[in-house]
Amino acid sequence: MRARRRKWTNKEVETNEKILLSPQDFKGKWKDYFGNDNPLYVEIGCGKGRFIFENAKISRDVNFLALEREMEVIVVGARKARIEPDLNNIAFAACDAQGFLDIFAPGEIDRIYINFCDPWPNRKKWRKRRLTHRGFLEMYKNILAPNGEIFFKTDNSQLFEFSINEFLETGWKLKNVTLDLHKSEFTGNIMTEYEERFFNLGMPIYRLEAAKSEA
Amino acid sequence: MRARRRKWTNKEVETNEKILLSPQDFKGKWKDYFGNDNPLYVEIGCGKGRFIFENAKISRDVNFLALEREMEVIVVGARKARIEPDLNNIAFAACDAQGFLDIFAPGEIDRIYINFCDPWPNRKKWRKRRLTHRGFLEMYKNILAPNGEIFFKTDNSQLFEFSINEFLETGWKLKNVTLDLHKSEFTGNIMTEYEERFFNLGMPIYRLEAAKSEA
Repeated sequence: MRARRRKWTNKEVETNEKILLSPQDFKGKWKDYFGNDNPLYVEIGCGKGRFIFENAKISRDVNFLALEREMEVIVVGARKARIEPDLNNIAFAACDAQGFLDIFAPGEIDRIYINFCDPWPNRKKWRKRRLTHRGFLEMYKNILAPNGEIFFKTDNSQLFEFSINEFLETGWKLKNVTLDLHKSEFTGNIMTEYEERFFNLGMPIYRLEAAKSEA
Repeated sequence: MRARRRKWTNKEVETNEKILLSPQDFKGKWKDYFGNDNPLYVEIGCGKGRFIFENAKISRDVNFLALEREMEVIVVGARKARIEPDLNNIAFAACDAQGFLDIFAPGEIDRIYINFCDPWPNRKKWRKRRLTHRGFLEMYKNILAPNGEIFFKTDNSQLFEFSINEFLETGWKLKNVTLDLHKSEFTGNIMTEYEERFFNLGMPIYRLEAAKSEA
């Protein structure tokens, strides 16, 4: 997501303690960073952060780390999190999926959220860039705990079809698959900014949960 | 599928040897009936039979059994099969899913096709009638061989969503899931009569394959 340059971006980055400029310093030490033994949930591509911010407010016994490539975008969510009183279970960092292994030790993450990632064109040479391509799925397996899981949402049916098969073919255990989230029986959904636009247009949202093992 | 009464139905039923009036006589003996050791593929709800008829013509080394509730419908496909020269690998019988255990011994079927079955209303009390409800899935497991599988197609997204989760929750191994069969990379699809109408309207067709075990 590309954002316009905000005047307050630099100041926010410099002064907001919830923005981590060197997240790799906490590799293997995320429990130390948060100061507790709570599970760690990571959102890849958090955008302006509404989804993970709302989750963090509701689930105080979970630590949330919001990742996004562009600092311009991160600051929007990080600013809200800074202002919110007593919200100590969330942090933000600039990172893309390629940088994951520098930030997380094996088994360190309990849940990964992938919400409305770039579907890329549905042609072979582009598919490996999708965040649900098997190359990434194998990497996630490495940094997820034994009972770790991925929660995935998209509005793109081709990406969803591709993703289902990538998960299945690499041994993940799928559950709660829905082809129209907002008409399903799923409760407690928190919408991303992007999702809300599609929802308002009456477009279906696809969602699944994938467990690393069958445990 | 309800069909109009055809004048030639009774005569066809009486004289067409490909229509089995007592299929339960062959329970555990389908290899004897076909006179070979080839695999047995069964279509539940074959309608007018185009799908299984075309399959039988292409795959002579497989035995095909076409099941449908109403004899009025069965006769259409059975007549084509009778006229087709040297087509010895297909038979038809009137049967619904409840009657399966009377017709098949444990492990006797290699593949089940379920094409465009009745989706029933998407409410709890109706769902158990769906041919992909877990009650039926457990029964299919019993009559499928260890490497047995189900190939399932539908135009109904709610039924497809329901079915994916029923398969997953009862331990089937899914593969080749597609949300738009005719735009997918799947080759060799044979359309049912019903499917062709939806295809001509540009509607997506959903399809999956489910293996009984992970072997």
